[in-house]
Amino acid sequence: MSMRKAAVVTAGSWGTGLASVLADNEYDVMLWTRSETQAEEINRDRLNRKYTGDYELPERIRATAKMEEALAGASLVLFVSPSHAMREVARQAKPFLDSAVTVIHATKGFEPGTMKRMTAVLAEELPQIDAGRLVVLSGPSHAEEVIQRCPTTVVVAAERLDAAEEAQDALINSYFRVYTNPDVTGVEVGGALKNIIALGAGLSDGLGFGDNAKAALITRGLTEIARLGVAMGGHALTFSGLAGIGDLVVTCTSKHSRNWRAGYLLGQGKPLEEVLETMGMVVEGVKTTKTAFALSRQYEVSMPITEQLHEVLFAGKEPRQAVGHLMGRLRTHEIEELADSFGDKWML
Amino acid sequence: MSMRKAAVVTAGSWGTGLASVLADNEYDVMLWTRSETQAEEINRDRLNRKYTGDYELPERIRATAKMEEALAGASLVLFVSPSHAMREVARQAKPFLDSAVTVIHATKGFEPGTMKRMTAVLAEELPQIDAGRLVVLSGPSHAEEVIQRCPTTVVVAAERLDAAEEAQDALINSYFRVYTNPDVTGVEVGGALKNIIALGAGLSDGLGFGDNAKAALITRGLTEIARLGVAMGGHALTFSGLAGIGDLVVTCTSKHSRNWRAGYLLGQGKPLEEVLETMGMVVEGVKTTKTAFALSRQYEVSMPITEQLHEVLFAGKEPRQAVGHLMGRLRTHEIEELADSFGDKWML
Repeated sequence: MSMRKAAVVTAGSWGTGLASVLADNEYDVMLWTRSETQAEEINRDRLNRKYTGDYELPERIRATAKMEEALAGASLVLFVSPSHAMREVARQAKPFLDSAVTVIHATKGFEPGTMKRMTAVLAEELPQIDAGRLVVLSGPSHAEEVIQRCPTTVVVAAERLDAAEEAQDALINSYFRVYTNPDVTGVEVGGALKNIIALGAGLSDGLGFGDNAKAALITRGLTEIARLGVAMGGHALTFSGLAGIGDLVVTCTSKHSRNWRAGYLLGQGKPLEEVLETMGMVVEGVKTTKTAFALSRQYEVSMPITEQLHEVLFAGKEPRQAVGHLMGRLRTHEIEELADSFGDKWML
Repeated sequence: MSMRKAAVVTAGSWGTGLASVLADNEYDVMLWTRSETQAEEINRDRLNRKYTGDYELPERIRATAKMEEALAGASLVLFVSPSHAMREVARQAKPFLDSAVTVIHATKGFEPGTMKRMTAVLAEELPQIDAGRLVVLSGPSHAEEVIQRCPTTVVVAAERLDAAEEAQDALINSYFRVYTNPDVTGVEVGGALKNIIALGAGLSDGLGFGDNAKAALITRGLTEIARLGVAMGGHALTFSGLAGIGDLVVTCTSKHSRNWRAGYLLGQGKPLEEVLETMGMVVEGVKTTKTAFALSRQYEVSMPITEQLHEVLFAGKEPRQAVGHLMGRLRTHEIEELADSFGDKWML
């Protein structure tokens, strides 16, 4: 029996999905959860009912509500908390993590308030870990499909290649393909912002606008994500990759997506409070819209979709009016930059 | 009553969709079809049953099987024939077109055999038209949604801006947003090649591989489309726009797509001949796969998805083996170019 141990913090659906991948790769996995009841249920019934329904967890996965127990002996720790809770769980984990541990996070969002990326939060709270070895995992990966072992591809990014490769080695298998990427900023920004566009795509679908409109929204959405991402130091190519367009497509077009679902309900006329209550789980896109709106001001970057969603979510704008505004915006040329580059080749 | 006249050649579903847009914009539209029976049906019943079901055509649309009648007095002619028929219909149209007419095409494919783009075919067959004024229309635009007046955005590209703007003026309205783009090559290549990726996405869905796998395929698909497109003289930015990622997304994720549907049936184990028979309409992606495979050799560009589909369609390879091959390809870095650009920032 292998002695490889990993910890996953916390036991939501994506945490459970990644724990299953590690279990398939012969890791003994401790799932940490704040809730003792949930930990007991997992250990007793092999089920994490609220998050993964009737999926039977592999024997190698156990759960605990004690951070010290979760992290004891783990050579790899995966943080998958909601973005607003990342700092606090990292703080709890700090005393039990030594500098040799591989730290990965798979959370898509910014810290509310500080607007910091998750690796920045982890770097601040886990000073014993070399910041260059902090890894982010992202890409088109619905947990529901990963636990069914459907073919999935993801990206791991770190400033140091060796850390990214450690994460790749630990997670890669026949159905879970892991690629390395050096652009931590781009991967984190892409993952966070796609949830905004997914909300918008859901809104459009909820209003009954159709696939043509949604495709236009996704296209424009990618442009505005990349615009902010590049302004924040990310690399344009990352947004054409798995953590950019790949994740955007799966989140906007799949029935599994929580953010799409929340937008859909809003589009059908449900008020925000009711939508969030119906969902039962965290809808990252709502918090991210607030942060991205502020970031677009700070970096002086035009983000029309984010702006309209911000008005719908926080200023009571009618969804139909917001999406109508986006569809109706009359710009003469598709891509100003492109028209310019053709210069006088584009003869009048 | 307006005297603006337009002709649409031929009366398939997309031709009918674009004819409806022109009718809404107060054009009198003549739809040309090879079939006298179809023309009679349209004029008598206001229905184009085979292509647009029970959609009642606007009064301003009439149909004819006589090319001379179709083109008489038209200031704008839209060619929407299948790619293999474009040369022949252009040849038929030639005697009735004078040099002042705005010529647009909305066909997504290369000419089989010659591998030429549609504007190149039109330039050869219609020497009286300034080649710089030939317009291509493309983008995420299912005909089924356009005839329902769902919000839709498309791109028109021409070497000469004035021609693109004429097309824009003629077609734009409240639900049909038209943007200009100077990159004719990029728009035509993007439109043609997305049908290959749609076949692949259908194949993946038909095999039951899930949304994560499909998103990866779309991401990689966009990369390989852009790679060939840039080698052929297109502009990279076009592939991030409506005629690139926009059209790719809608074709790969919408139930309306014929190419996706054909791939889906192949993935479920149906033989190619049976699939093509079931479809009843032209499946551009099949011909395009053959052409793109040859172009990838000619331009020495790596196109793994096209290559695998080529083997499935024309060499009897098992779909499961082909998609498995694509998912399993182990490349260490997501984007080689990106890893290189980070250079020694990516420290070992």
